[in-house]
Amino acid sequence: MEKEYVVGVDVGGQTTKIGIVDRNGAIPAQTVISSKYGPDEGEKFMDSVCLTIQNLAAEVGGMEKIQGIGIGAPNGNYYTGMIEDAPNLPWANGKRVFLKQYIGTRLNVPVTVTNDANAAAVGEMTYGAARGMKDFIMLTLGTGVGSGIVIGGQLVYGHDGFAGELGHTRAVRQNGRRCGCGHDGCLEAYASAIGVARTAREWLESGKYPESVLAGVQEITSKDVYEAAVKGDRLAIDVFNYTGKILGECCANFVAFSAPEAIVLFGGLARAGEYIFKPMREAMNANLLAIWKDKISIIPSALKESDAAILGAGALAW
Amino acid sequence: MEKEYVVGVDVGGQTTKIGIVDRNGAIPAQTVISSKYGPDEGEKFMDSVCLTIQNLAAEVGGMEKIQGIGIGAPNGNYYTGMIEDAPNLPWANGKRVFLKQYIGTRLNVPVTVTNDANAAAVGEMTYGAARGMKDFIMLTLGTGVGSGIVIGGQLVYGHDGFAGELGHTRAVRQNGRRCGCGHDGCLEAYASAIGVARTAREWLESGKYPESVLAGVQEITSKDVYEAAVKGDRLAIDVFNYTGKILGECCANFVAFSAPEAIVLFGGLARAGEYIFKPMREAMNANLLAIWKDKISIIPSALKESDAAILGAGALAW
Repeated sequence: MEKEYVVGVDVGGQTTKIGIVDRNGAIPAQTVISSKYGPDEGEKFMDSVCLTIQNLAAEVGGMEKIQGIGIGAPNGNYYTGMIEDAPNLPWANGKRVFLKQYIGTRLNVPVTVTNDANAAAVGEMTYGAARGMKDFIMLTLGTGVGSGIVIGGQLVYGHDGFAGELGHTRAVRQNGRRCGCGHDGCLEAYASAIGVARTAREWLESGKYPESVLAGVQEITSKDVYEAAVKGDRLAIDVFNYTGKILGECCANFVAFSAPEAIVLFGGLARAGEYIFKPMREAMNANLLAIWKDKISIIPSALKESDAAILGAGALAW
Repeated sequence: MEKEYVVGVDVGGQTTKIGIVDRNGAIPAQTVISSKYGPDEGEKFMDSVCLTIQNLAAEVGGMEKIQGIGIGAPNGNYYTGMIEDAPNLPWANGKRVFLKQYIGTRLNVPVTVTNDANAAAVGEMTYGAARGMKDFIMLTLGTGVGSGIVIGGQLVYGHDGFAGELGHTRAVRQNGRRCGCGHDGCLEAYASAIGVARTAREWLESGKYPESVLAGVQEITSKDVYEAAVKGDRLAIDVFNYTGKILGECCANFVAFSAPEAIVLFGGLARAGEYIFKPMREAMNANLLAIWKDKISIIPSALKESDAAILGAGALAW
């Protein structure tokens, strides 16, 4: 009997999304469970994942219809199949959690693990904007900046499984902002949702934009900045121009590395459309070697954000 | 009959080195021919290459012993088999030269073409310091800065065959030096032999190093800087510290991309040993994410410089 489905598991800081995925990217069954378990409750969490998978599988004909399980998780490592120290998950903070081994043995199905941005890249290649592409770079612009790099149709894992940390390449060398990783000037400190909100706040505080509609907002988010830009707010538009320029400059470096056909943007900031794409495209082209100028596309993800994580994780398992 | 040999062809601006290579990396026959042909003499050059290959092959038993020909050339493209516009070669300046098609048809042997830095990386993987490695980055620090990137045991060509232009990633963002490519602040403008000599000259002219032994040198080269450093010259040592720091910072970005096991240095500057390796290693580690700190090696090429080009080009053909 052909196995018609895979399972996609997206482990987030608060919740874990689990879905059954077919070959066309439809999701006939899905649900959300809590990721909140205590420091010693990693197995309890994995038990909950296993039980949920069995229940969802029952809706499509049982576990014998499942070809494999793909798991996208913070610091998920493809080679070891583990989460290797994820500070945002109390049960994985400072320790290794054997996802692949535990869940694979329990359910007797092959399990593939990687980090969320890599899973997103595979999802995009299988079902989304990068279908048919063999060389592209996925940037996930969310709370942080993640990346998944595909070269010759293969996800790049590196010698240790941790390749693709483009959010921690240096975007600003002089007086760069402190990043969560402890270094200064990382791309993530500027081009994440948090970075955009911070830029807006800093510029407001500088007093240069007294008329900005953002002046009245209590806790500015990147969504507030986007909505202000749509209203024509100068500060908000400048923030996107600044962020897009930094992103574009970094992308020129990425292109010099792997000569991708396209850069695919995913996540909250990607929804800002041309406010961010235009300055990004201009800065990238201004910094590319002549052989690449105007030849590398920057395109938005084609996956629905609500489904992308499950699709991406599931696609790992095909 | 087993084909025991390949031919390695290294096309340089002045001369072209051609050698017969066996499976152990020995070079039983080799010679050097001129690369100097006029704008319309591309075929004449290729005829000369073909004739030379036939003559060398005769020394080891004839063309039927040759499995393939590997050619490393400026802007050599793996996918198209052509030199795609090489400004330093009058016969390839502003035009495409069909190396693979012409020579392959003429000699009836498979021809593989790539650029010189990629060829060096393959040579290092086959015969040199990267033997057994599946993930490493080769930096060739010569007149320019070239690079060959190996991921999962495969050379990275990118969607168009031009991947691995790490010399043109931005090393200095503010008031960066003008690079030969027309952009400012490229790694090549600092970490090439020309860049090192330029740093020394600029610092001399600044008057901050009145006692430097380099003050008496007419046309400073990177070799002069090295020799001065060995004598303990402060300027020269500072130049290597500065260059190594820039290289190391850029390498941290490269590691974030592909998580290589090692970075292999080849070319004139690599011979400066710890004068350049030490500051490079320190700057790289100071800029790496914690997962990689002190885990990525920076190592010198293990190939004799005089043989490396032929070995690298030849290794392409296995």
